[in-house]
Amino acid sequence: MLPPGPMSRFLDQAKAVVGAENVIHEPEDLLVFEYDGSVDRGLPGAVVFPISVEEVSQIMALAYAESLRVVGRGAGTGLSGGAISSPGGVQIAFTRMHNILDVDTENRTATVEPGVINLDLDTYAHRFGLRYAPDPSSQKACSLGGNIAENAGGPHCLAYGTTTNHVLGMEVVLEDGAVVNLGSLARETVGYDLRGVFTGSEGTFGIATKIAVRLLPVPEAVRTFLGIFLDVETACTAVSAVIEHGIVPAALEMIDALTIQAVQKVNDAGYPDDAGAVLLIELEGLQDEVDEIGEEVEAALWETGASQVRTAEAAAEREQLWVGRKGALGALGSIAPNYFLVDGVVPRTQLAPVLGRVADVSRKYNIPIANVFHAGDGNLHPCLLFDERQPGALDKIVEAGTEVLQICVDAGGTLTGEHGVGLEKKEQMPMVFSKDDMAAMVLVRDAFAPDNSLNPGKIFPDGKKHTPHAHPPAHGMPA
Amino acid sequence: MLPPGPMSRFLDQAKAVVGAENVIHEPEDLLVFEYDGSVDRGLPGAVVFPISVEEVSQIMALAYAESLRVVGRGAGTGLSGGAISSPGGVQIAFTRMHNILDVDTENRTATVEPGVINLDLDTYAHRFGLRYAPDPSSQKACSLGGNIAENAGGPHCLAYGTTTNHVLGMEVVLEDGAVVNLGSLARETVGYDLRGVFTGSEGTFGIATKIAVRLLPVPEAVRTFLGIFLDVETACTAVSAVIEHGIVPAALEMIDALTIQAVQKVNDAGYPDDAGAVLLIELEGLQDEVDEIGEEVEAALWETGASQVRTAEAAAEREQLWVGRKGALGALGSIAPNYFLVDGVVPRTQLAPVLGRVADVSRKYNIPIANVFHAGDGNLHPCLLFDERQPGALDKIVEAGTEVLQICVDAGGTLTGEHGVGLEKKEQMPMVFSKDDMAAMVLVRDAFAPDNSLNPGKIFPDGKKHTPHAHPPAHGMPA
Repeated sequence: MLPPGPMSRFLDQAKAVVGAENVIHEPEDLLVFEYDGSVDRGLPGAVVFPISVEEVSQIMALAYAESLRVVGRGAGTGLSGGAISSPGGVQIAFTRMHNILDVDTENRTATVEPGVINLDLDTYAHRFGLRYAPDPSSQKACSLGGNIAENAGGPHCLAYGTTTNHVLGMEVVLEDGAVVNLGSLARETVGYDLRGVFTGSEGTFGIATKIAVRLLPVPEAVRTFLGIFLDVETACTAVSAVIEHGIVPAALEMIDALTIQAVQKVNDAGYPDDAGAVLLIELEGLQDEVDEIGEEVEAALWETGASQVRTAEAAAEREQLWVGRKGALGALGSIAPNYFLVDGVVPRTQLAPVLGRVADVSRKYNIPIANVFHAGDGNLHPCLLFDERQPGALDKIVEAGTEVLQICVDAGGTLTGEHGVGLEKKEQMPMVFSKDDMAAMVLVRDAFAPDNSLNPGKIFPDGKKHTPHAHPPAHGMPA
Repeated sequence: MLPPGPMSRFLDQAKAVVGAENVIHEPEDLLVFEYDGSVDRGLPGAVVFPISVEEVSQIMALAYAESLRVVGRGAGTGLSGGAISSPGGVQIAFTRMHNILDVDTENRTATVEPGVINLDLDTYAHRFGLRYAPDPSSQKACSLGGNIAENAGGPHCLAYGTTTNHVLGMEVVLEDGAVVNLGSLARETVGYDLRGVFTGSEGTFGIATKIAVRLLPVPEAVRTFLGIFLDVETACTAVSAVIEHGIVPAALEMIDALTIQAVQKVNDAGYPDDAGAVLLIELEGLQDEVDEIGEEVEAALWETGASQVRTAEAAAEREQLWVGRKGALGALGSIAPNYFLVDGVVPRTQLAPVLGRVADVSRKYNIPIANVFHAGDGNLHPCLLFDERQPGALDKIVEAGTEVLQICVDAGGTLTGEHGVGLEKKEQMPMVFSKDDMAAMVLVRDAFAPDNSLNPGKIFPDGKKHTPHAHPPAHGMPA
């Protein structure tokens, strides 16, 4: 029994709205909702599982009346702490709102509830020769609501853009329970693009309860190229060569020597012992187009010094080429118990020099750093490897990670490519934004959520040290 | 001499900032700044021509101190009244800020001042094998600053998206003169996407003084197809056939029988007398790709009943095929002194039935309506033809235009595809937005411009009838 107070009153009323079986509040039941995919944690006071916009609206109005903080939760796969609750706050979980409401094949749109899993939408769309393009590596688990909150990316966002390029509109519940519609099913924006600014607002503006997205035709042909290089620097010249040909691959991904070692330990992907970098390039389009550009890509790989080039067009064989990249983060568990992933972005032309400076950080701090990254759009993911059981290890990691971000920013880049700012990078925001820039952002947040009761304490620096835990070994399916 | 007062004080100080020669305030000099491309008008009290962000900031701070209303003006080609001044307000014209500051060919970005003409940027980028994709039909005259304010579209936005898909970041002066940076040259967004919500905010949030955009490689091949059909309905089946093949043309445009008549009167484009619709399709890509898809397009045109199909690949010949479409609005002057263009959008599958209902409106009001439109993305431009010298003619036109918009909305569409809401459509906003939806927009505007002194009186309904003048004959280069 909770003592009488805001949470106790909230729970009584919330149970009346969604049913007692759809409210969790016992400490032992709440533990699993303390984490997401990031290094942070926060124990909610209650988790509520609504099934409709009406229930979400009523729950939020109740929380608002009791001045309780609220955060939405999809699958909890986020990597920057976006779905982590304020201690004692209310978490609204979208597990039960998982229906694909409509697919309009003629106009190529879909309308879904926020709990729909990214890959489930894509798989369903394939029945009609269509696809949902954004494909975070967590796509088997992550939900559309979370994708919108974090403006999720993925390997194929190089060609197709991130989530914001595919969302047409959404129904949103504001902090006081009011329901508004942003954007529309029409592909054009009328009035201010609130749809756009809501996408990527990391749960601080409101909670989406219905989402309309654009679908694309499935390409006629897909071909994957895997090039093995002696080192990352040489592989980066291959990236430049492909881009300079005017080719925009659907995906352009790389893993470095340390990652290759980890992958080989877990699951022999057939990489040679001296492989210093594996580059993956995927082309999509008409068969003739893929054939023609494919020849150029293959030539570029050989000309820039690849020691091996493999290609595949059948789905199962392509999957084989991807196995090293897709399993990379999980495989890091084979060489260190924990990793800390830095989501920095640099101009594509700065890839090789920045990776050199990241290697300097590795030597300076004596921290192994494995690189797994979206080379095509300059989105690095240096993974700092460590053992959380060593005293002070995590503090050193966070310090080194900050230095890596500073290197990215100094090279003309920025703090995050696809995982959001959340708790993890909020203290680094001043690296890229002035006080005036951030003040403008806060004012816009206040326009949506004047009480700042939605996912507070995220994105903006407040000098409060967050309380990271370490990544579990062989962690999740991120990046 | 002005009487002492806010404007008089502003003028004295503004002249000290930009030089007396860069401030206009005599009524006869101001007249040319009363109009833009829309049917509305408003006489500013002063027009200032700054040359730097520092000057813009100082001018805006001065206007703010005197509680004067401010609007930015690029080329004044807008069609919804976006650049029209509040009576007696300050207009900031960007004629002198017309420099392309940087083109980064490796990372494919450009940084420009807001007065740069759209086509000038594109032409300059071509030197490096690059292009700026959004191409409003006014691209020979319109400026990037205005393009951002209105989130401008254009025929080739079907494949490439509107301005917001190509803007990476901007330096913005807020109403009190503060300077903030939104977005960045990096292709990823960090924090809230203020870049996105600023784009299309129609001058109400702030004034951009520097703009970073994405450039794309120039395609290897471009081929244009012109199909002549007996009527618009049949031509719409060709549109469906092309889209159903999974083809995304770079452009997919149509003109109807009345427009064809007008075009033929002005400049014989060689259309047969019984032509009821001309469909233009443009493909871009690799030569092989254009060849292969081109065969499908040509087959689809014949199969859906085209009476003629013409194709061209050389630039000059393609230009010939485009002449009817590009000259369409100008040519309307040959059949009526004035037109009122409605910018409604409908789902692509609703094109034919909606055009039928537009024809009903034409009969009901006895108003000739010529259709010139972006068929690919369902963006109609019914042009209501009239003679402003007839008493009451414009009122009837505005009433009929509102009915056309209602038809678009009822078909699942919306109010504007690319010209903005501005003055023209603000009273129709309740057709698509609830009071709560609009209240959310106003709150976001207040976050940027709490005094609402930037371009006030636009976008949101206030029940004030605006004071339209009629379109001049053979007007401009819109759509």
